[in-house]
Amino acid sequence: MLVNIALRTFIVLGHKAAISPHFTLNDLAGSGGRLDILCRCINSAFMLSHGIRTGVRVYLLLQNHVSLRFEGGSLKYLNPDERSTGALIQKALKNRKKIKEGEELESTPGIYVSNSTLKEVLERVEETGLKIYILHERGRDIRKARIPEEVAFVLSDHLDFTGREEKLLAGYQKLKVGPKILHADHTITVVQNELDRIFN
Amino acid sequence: MLVNIALRTFIVLGHKAAISPHFTLNDLAGSGGRLDILCRCINSAFMLSHGIRTGVRVYLLLQNHVSLRFEGGSLKYLNPDERSTGALIQKALKNRKKIKEGEELESTPGIYVSNSTLKEVLERVEETGLKIYILHERGRDIRKARIPEEVAFVLSDHLDFTGREEKLLAGYQKLKVGPKILHADHTITVVQNELDRIFN
Repeated sequence: MLVNIALRTFIVLGHKAAISPHFTLNDLAGSGGRLDILCRCINSAFMLSHGIRTGVRVYLLLQNHVSLRFEGGSLKYLNPDERSTGALIQKALKNRKKIKEGEELESTPGIYVSNSTLKEVLERVEETGLKIYILHERGRDIRKARIPEEVAFVLSDHLDFTGREEKLLAGYQKLKVGPKILHADHTITVVQNELDRIFN
Repeated sequence: MLVNIALRTFIVLGHKAAISPHFTLNDLAGSGGRLDILCRCINSAFMLSHGIRTGVRVYLLLQNHVSLRFEGGSLKYLNPDERSTGALIQKALKNRKKIKEGEELESTPGIYVSNSTLKEVLERVEETGLKIYILHERGRDIRKARIPEEVAFVLSDHLDFTGREEKLLAGYQKLKVGPKILHADHTITVVQNELDRIFN
């Protein structure tokens, strides 16, 4: 179950990401539908040089259909390389078959799988009282925004938000991290650095 | 041959990184001696959302013995995932056998392999006129330093600099990227963002 603690949260949309476990770890980019990006996002969100950021939560939202929720406070077996994170995702997708309608299942410590849409995930994040921002190249510079400590960010993989997603996200402010357009995982790294500087 | 153009340069020291091609792409972290870190450093140094940073050069220095020089202006076949970058490194290490003493060989477009030490690489970078900094947790905040556009950064993989390396690097200023100690690849991402903001 999701305990409603406000944790620094990232919601990453994987538009083509595999929702079945039948992909090969040897080709996360191709067979996994760019799962390589999502694995790097997990790395950027959680990894410090000497440990894991415990106060972070990440939702990987696969094809607006499957949610993988990662909890920094209880995560185990997370290593920085893409392949081992891909294996944790694969395991979660295997365990997904055991879920009953509306349920969420802990696949490995700190990784929860459920069938959820962006709308549902946003509702859950709203409930925790976090202020939600969109990370987007056409946003306001993050250094000029007054970001609270209890905050969530929505960002997309290598593809743009769909029209439907744009509608759902229309009420939130867009932020960008700098003058260049970065990959999703690099964007998360820069955001973490900005927040580290404000809330260290 | 190294054309002496001053390019934003990163020199990453891989202390245990494989110098023979006999590692498996399925275990870059273990069999490759944490080559996964170096692959992510390449990604952080070069990758933009819509292309490659052409004005960047990276040296991966493996066991203070083998240098892999990546040139953003001519790089081909570089993808963001670790495994495909690992394959380019493996190919370069295979091609290394063809090098005669003192030579450098272009393994694939934009990737050059040679037998070189840190001392030699530093000499080459000095020749291009770049100001060299060390990226290190006990450095001065990068936002407070006046970094020139023509700049090089030395940083280490998951291990500290050795005593010998510290001696070689003693003359250069140390910079840190924030209050938390980050992985090498995240450090590069943050540095790129800082420089993008200054020199965009």
